[in-house]
Amino acid sequence: MKKRSSNKWFQPLPSSRRGLNDSFGVSLIKRVTCLAGGVGAARFLQGLIKVIPQEKITVVVNTGDDINLYGLHVSPDPDIIMYTLTEIVDEEKGWGIRNDTFHALEMLKKLGLETWFKLGDKDFATHIHRTHLLKEGYPLHKVTDIICRASGLRTKIIPMTNDKVTPKIGTDVGEMHFEEYLVKRGARDKVLNVTFEGAESADPAPGVTESIREADGVIVCPSNPIVSIGPILAVSRIREALRETKAKIIAISPIVGGATIKGPADKLMRGLGLEVSAYSVAFLYRDFLDVFIMDDVDKDDKERVERLNIKAIVTNTIMRSLQDKVRLARLALSSIE
Amino acid sequence: MKKRSSNKWFQPLPSSRRGLNDSFGVSLIKRVTCLAGGVGAARFLQGLIKVIPQEKITVVVNTGDDINLYGLHVSPDPDIIMYTLTEIVDEEKGWGIRNDTFHALEMLKKLGLETWFKLGDKDFATHIHRTHLLKEGYPLHKVTDIICRASGLRTKIIPMTNDKVTPKIGTDVGEMHFEEYLVKRGARDKVLNVTFEGAESADPAPGVTESIREADGVIVCPSNPIVSIGPILAVSRIREALRETKAKIIAISPIVGGATIKGPADKLMRGLGLEVSAYSVAFLYRDFLDVFIMDDVDKDDKERVERLNIKAIVTNTIMRSLQDKVRLARLALSSIE
Repeated sequence: MKKRSSNKWFQPLPSSRRGLNDSFGVSLIKRVTCLAGGVGAARFLQGLIKVIPQEKITVVVNTGDDINLYGLHVSPDPDIIMYTLTEIVDEEKGWGIRNDTFHALEMLKKLGLETWFKLGDKDFATHIHRTHLLKEGYPLHKVTDIICRASGLRTKIIPMTNDKVTPKIGTDVGEMHFEEYLVKRGARDKVLNVTFEGAESADPAPGVTESIREADGVIVCPSNPIVSIGPILAVSRIREALRETKAKIIAISPIVGGATIKGPADKLMRGLGLEVSAYSVAFLYRDFLDVFIMDDVDKDDKERVERLNIKAIVTNTIMRSLQDKVRLARLALSSIE
Repeated sequence: MKKRSSNKWFQPLPSSRRGLNDSFGVSLIKRVTCLAGGVGAARFLQGLIKVIPQEKITVVVNTGDDINLYGLHVSPDPDIIMYTLTEIVDEEKGWGIRNDTFHALEMLKKLGLETWFKLGDKDFATHIHRTHLLKEGYPLHKVTDIICRASGLRTKIIPMTNDKVTPKIGTDVGEMHFEEYLVKRGARDKVLNVTFEGAESADPAPGVTESIREADGVIVCPSNPIVSIGPILAVSRIREALRETKAKIIAISPIVGGATIKGPADKLMRGLGLEVSAYSVAFLYRDFLDVFIMDDVDKDDKERVERLNIKAIVTNTIMRSLQDKVRLARLALSSIE
């Protein structure tokens, strides 16, 4: 928790003067670091870049969903963040690139290959380029940076680690990769446990712990606490940096009214014997969290959360419009103070 | 040259009874091996598979044009043959797959990469799959076979070698890969010489020399003698097999009236100090060739060709319609006898 000399550095303007791109008040923030999964985080970050310049934001992204398909290194979460912030994402689907075609995938199917993971043709280009750069010897964080810069993104995206950390979902029909559990089998299997293969020996990618230690604030985006934020926290030096940083750490609950907005977080939490609630999320982050933003419908959890020595803010967390995203971003930023 | 007990094994039916798919007479042919480059060979082979069952044909294909693009192993000639014989080729363009899109390539361009080699989205799937199989440890001839079988092709396609043999075009502006000379720079540079990097130590792929030694006949397709057939012949054990086989060897001239139907063979031949003529092609193959099929317009070359101790057949070699291709295929097959 960083103490500041003045508490006036972030003060909302009267609503009549507030525009979407107005960054009044946040000019004193030098650096914000966000921990992110895929879709939920991307939606929140869409608001954040309207309130604070992209250059001030570092996003540490989950690579636990990274998967090798047809010999290509696919990074679902970093790509969703990149596609969303460069405004080419297919918002309706929530993944992939708008107006993309699936001709390569159709051809791979004709060649007898499994095609349960939907990769569009433009999307393939990203994976081809990434795989090539990795093969040329660039580490993943450098590759991610090259692709993001080439895409015109000014926000810095860092994969949580250059090592391989893979959540394995233990189910009643056996252990599987998260994407296999989610996409191939439609999250239909009973979850028994989740382990993070490779986490013990994984190092944070260069820049990750620095960005946490040197930020004015850290925001844990509304992402799946088990398989999106979970893998990031499973890298012990990242969790250590979160515990030790002077930056205030704010999390936004991905659980609203005992359910997830998107994705299988509820099934995973239940499988792990956790109560499916906003409170549970705060509980999972209790060793480093300062402020927890939770939805109005969960207001009864406020007291329990505050007993964890975490400040709870109750508000409308549903992000339907850009205005919703901007409002939530402003609230998170104001909580950094 | 194989002697046969009867010369009646291939006898054309009266024209009224001849259909495109009629294989009367050729049933005695057990195996035909073809040496092939890209488009010209593919057009000839389209006719051949209408006359003789696909299973009886082995095509030894040039891999001198193989090129690494974005970390993917692209095999232009084997792919043109495969796409043509499985009837998915874009006949108008002469390369690639019909109705393909170019979204991956557009995206790669946006990511700042060079995109002078036009790869379609479906086409990308072939290269992705090939590269993956190679990475998994399969040799190129096995990979080619896996992809051809999966595409439904029953003709056996063998890359001339699993090693790297690369024609380097020496020009007035420096040495370059053939595809760079042809596609990137539009064959505009003055050719000084052509060398085959890697040819000296290259071995024929498994099955290549066997298919030449055990065939009833070998057909050198109407392909560029310098950069399509040239690399195949530059593998010394292949040329040796051609000299030693008992099979009759027939070539079809790709040079008609002192020019090429397609591609830069004329420029390359001129650069090498060769006369651009059908005769020159026969001359390049004189150590193994038995029969040379040349176009009507080159009838004046017949005598010179026959002085090389090669039987010359003068006919219309232009393949406009499928009928043209079938007629040429029949003629080549009848010459095997």
